[in-house]
Amino acid sequence: MATHTLFLIPGDGIGTEIMAEVEKIIAWTNSEGLTDFATDQGLAGGAAYDRHQVAITEEDVAKAKAADAVIFGAVGGPKWDDVPYEHRPEAALLRLRKELSVFANLRPAICYPALAGASALKRELVEGLDILIVRELTGGVYFGEPKEIVDLPNGQKRAVDTQVYETYEIDRIARVAFDLARTRKGLVHSADKKNVMKSGVLWDEVVRSVAKDYPDVQFQHILADNAAMQLVRNPKQFDVMVTDNLFGDILSDAAAMLTGSLGMLPSASLGAPDPATGKRKAFYEPVHGSAPDIAGKGVANPIAMIASFAMALRYSFGMTELAGKVEAAIAGVLGDGLRTADIGEDNRRTVGTQEMGAAILGKL
Amino acid sequence: MATHTLFLIPGDGIGTEIMAEVEKIIAWTNSEGLTDFATDQGLAGGAAYDRHQVAITEEDVAKAKAADAVIFGAVGGPKWDDVPYEHRPEAALLRLRKELSVFANLRPAICYPALAGASALKRELVEGLDILIVRELTGGVYFGEPKEIVDLPNGQKRAVDTQVYETYEIDRIARVAFDLARTRKGLVHSADKKNVMKSGVLWDEVVRSVAKDYPDVQFQHILADNAAMQLVRNPKQFDVMVTDNLFGDILSDAAAMLTGSLGMLPSASLGAPDPATGKRKAFYEPVHGSAPDIAGKGVANPIAMIASFAMALRYSFGMTELAGKVEAAIAGVLGDGLRTADIGEDNRRTVGTQEMGAAILGKL
Ligand SMILES: CC(C)[C@H](C(=O)O)[C@@H](O)C(=O)O
Ligand SMILES: CC(C)[C@H](C(=O)O)[C@@H](O)C(=O)O
Repeated sequence: MATHTLFLIPGDGIGTEIMAEVEKIIAWTNSEGLTDFATDQGLAGGAAYDRHQVAITEEDVAKAKAADAVIFGAVGGPKWDDVPYEHRPEAALLRLRKELSVFANLRPAICYPALAGASALKRELVEGLDILIVRELTGGVYFGEPKEIVDLPNGQKRAVDTQVYETYEIDRIARVAFDLARTRKGLVHSADKKNVMKSGVLWDEVVRSVAKDYPDVQFQHILADNAAMQLVRNPKQFDVMVTDNLFGDILSDAAAMLTGSLGMLPSASLGAPDPATGKRKAFYEPVHGSAPDIAGKGVANPIAMIASFAMALRYSFGMTELAGKVEAAIAGVLGDGLRTADIGEDNRRTVGTQEMGAAILGKL
Repeated sequence: MATHTLFLIPGDGIGTEIMAEVEKIIAWTNSEGLTDFATDQGLAGGAAYDRHQVAITEEDVAKAKAADAVIFGAVGGPKWDDVPYEHRPEAALLRLRKELSVFANLRPAICYPALAGASALKRELVEGLDILIVRELTGGVYFGEPKEIVDLPNGQKRAVDTQVYETYEIDRIARVAFDLARTRKGLVHSADKKNVMKSGVLWDEVVRSVAKDYPDVQFQHILADNAAMQLVRNPKQFDVMVTDNLFGDILSDAAAMLTGSLGMLPSASLGAPDPATGKRKAFYEPVHGSAPDIAGKGVANPIAMIASFAMALRYSFGMTELAGKVEAAIAGVLGDGLRTADIGEDNRRTVGTQEMGAAILGKL
């Protein structure tokens, strides 16, 4: 029996193409005896809807929960714009996050040296950039109730979403951020809108009390709107930024785009360690989406997907060295001048998805 | 009796210094017979708290409601970090927005040609940038109830904020955006998170139905997280962006910072026209804050404050020509090479608040 199980969910759009490159890497690490992964595949998003008329089947949810790690591609596309709200592609993602209780979403925004010129920001502002956004992923306005649209007597409608946070939810995500800061530059920014939101007041209160347990880590509060500004003005002032589900969604996207490396950025979503086994549920996915416009053309950049697999090696299986090797292989092919179309520059060789995947495997 | 009344609220920090420059311009337009403004002054934020232990007095709220336009500086500063939540400086701003029902917050993000080099973005991405963010200002999560922190039986706390939007609130702000787009490049983006928020679903539904009344204006939906990305990647793709209170807060700050002209950007917050008189309540303030670190030093940039007064001339009093003159005077002194410290460049003359104000007045 294999030591570890991976549940692969390619999803929609470019998801299938980029997942295929990860599968090749898994086949290689298994064949070299570096890993002993058993893999299974599931459907999510439009792919699941087309087959089963739901965003994800109960069976696939159960498989995701049973696996040691879920490797996820991307979901969505214009084809499914009009499916019923509860079956829209994104529902699969939200369901999996909630069912796996992967509350800690780690979104690194790294500027690959070879790509510093590709950023919209001036080179000197992003060269060497390495921010880690720690986003709360299973609470806040994404899941709070009531969440509804009601008909009013006057013929109009009222829509309601509810942002809810309890102490323990803030406490545990703050600890993830401070723990990670210890392995990095030792600085945590916490972003909220405590000047207008009660959830921001509680967020700040709890994060500050967690900060007291980490006297060796520097702590700084920042308002979320100012965080958006400062990310644009001078992103290198940040190391780790912890924030709620909604602010994390927006700020991490802005941070990712700053790097010029959007097609390269992975993410990890982690649950709490099981008290008995110490294992934590985990979900890995690229930061970019399903890119329906280029799907099926063989031009998608597989790097973010492969880097997500590297995160799985590190965070789910403690294979730090192998993870580092995969990351070094990625940096290596970029250093060699290989580019996919999304990061294309003049006088660089532009390659397709498979060629990029093969080059990374070649380096390994 | 004066034709129009202005209620000036300098507020805290640099608010007083920059408002003084506006007062000089008002004195001049009055003395030239170009305007007939009667002005009165009030306190808000820390300044009001220090004197009256509230963020704003009932008397000043009443005066703001009675005035034809409110000209507001900025509030807040570390001195008042620990005042009770309901009296914190920001409470004055939220109270005034709500009491005046100024639901339409217009936040232009313009890159002054003379400052294209000051942006964190590459010059070619921001040169000529002219975006107008139309932010809903009196609804959403800023004001929805319940908004509370409750003690739980287990000793923890639960914080709740509520995002609420009704059809009419979305309809009226959308119309403001489409009307303004007609006077500009004719393109409206509407940003929401309809993939996770029911208020986003209603927002999109209502904006789309308003769009049908404006067949001459191009309409484009965008997810708020993608909007943050696209603002960084290629801001010139936008003309008018309409969005809710919270997304508007964050996206408009990011957009303002992009321009490199943060100390230069004004804003206007407008109410609905009174059915009887056609007049609308209005509130003008710079986008930047109270900048406590440089307060009292005479170095603050008064341009955003003066440009906010120009917006008042245009939107509250229909004095388009005079507004244009004030704006031209600002562009003129910048063209002459005058800079305050915040926009300082090598080999430019750096001047203080009063000198900059005087130079603009000189151009008039
Ligand atoms: C697809 C969507 C539901 C999702 C989110 O809002 O969380 C995405 O934007 C993300 O950041 O993973
Ligand atoms: C000061 C604060 C309450 C305010 C807001 O969040 O609206 C500010 O950030 C703004 O954008 O005007």
